[in-house]
Amino acid sequence: MERKKLSVAEIETGLLGLTDWRTANEKLAKKFDFADFAASLEFVNRVGAVAERLDHHPDVLFGWGYAEFFITTHDAGGITHRDFELAREIDELAAN
Amino acid sequence: MERKKLSVAEIETGLLGLTDWRTANEKLAKKFDFADFAASLEFVNRVGAVAERLDHHPDVLFGWGYAEFFITTHDAGGITHRDFELAREIDELAAN
Repeated sequence: MERKKLSVAEIETGLLGLTDWRTANEKLAKKFDFADFAASLEFVNRVGAVAERLDHHPDVLFGWGYAEFFITTHDAGGITHRDFELAREIDELAAN
Repeated sequence: MERKKLSVAEIETGLLGLTDWRTANEKLAKKFDFADFAASLEFVNRVGAVAERLDHHPDVLFGWGYAEFFITTHDAGGITHRDFELAREIDELAAN
């Protein structure tokens, strides 16, 4: 059930419960700003630990001062509840 | 001197000394394959340590089973010797 691809309406509803996430190519996406490369990588590692715990892994683009996450469920061919769960956990990390 | 933007001919010559690096949008780029997300992230962290030592930082795109690095010298507006130095060090990490 949680791996079922969500409809556009379901995704739009889900996005209302998140901050600054957007959709891009059937993925949830969000960019975070940091002070430098080390701070970006430190956050990426924290997200990596969450991804291992959830057994659900984002694609990550990061460098000096930023990290951007892209989340989809490949075997569902789109965005599922699992993607929203990971997005929420990333936001929680960023808030702490 | 080492921050001077290289010419196309100089870049082509430099690429001859590397394996599987290419140019993309005034950056040196190379993709590496790994077994899973954790292995990708572990390599990214090793590259991060080298980047801090050289004080020269790539942009990194990684996820399950891959990590891709993009290297340029922003204040030179293109590729410099420093970028080739970082590329060589990344290859050395991958070889060990």
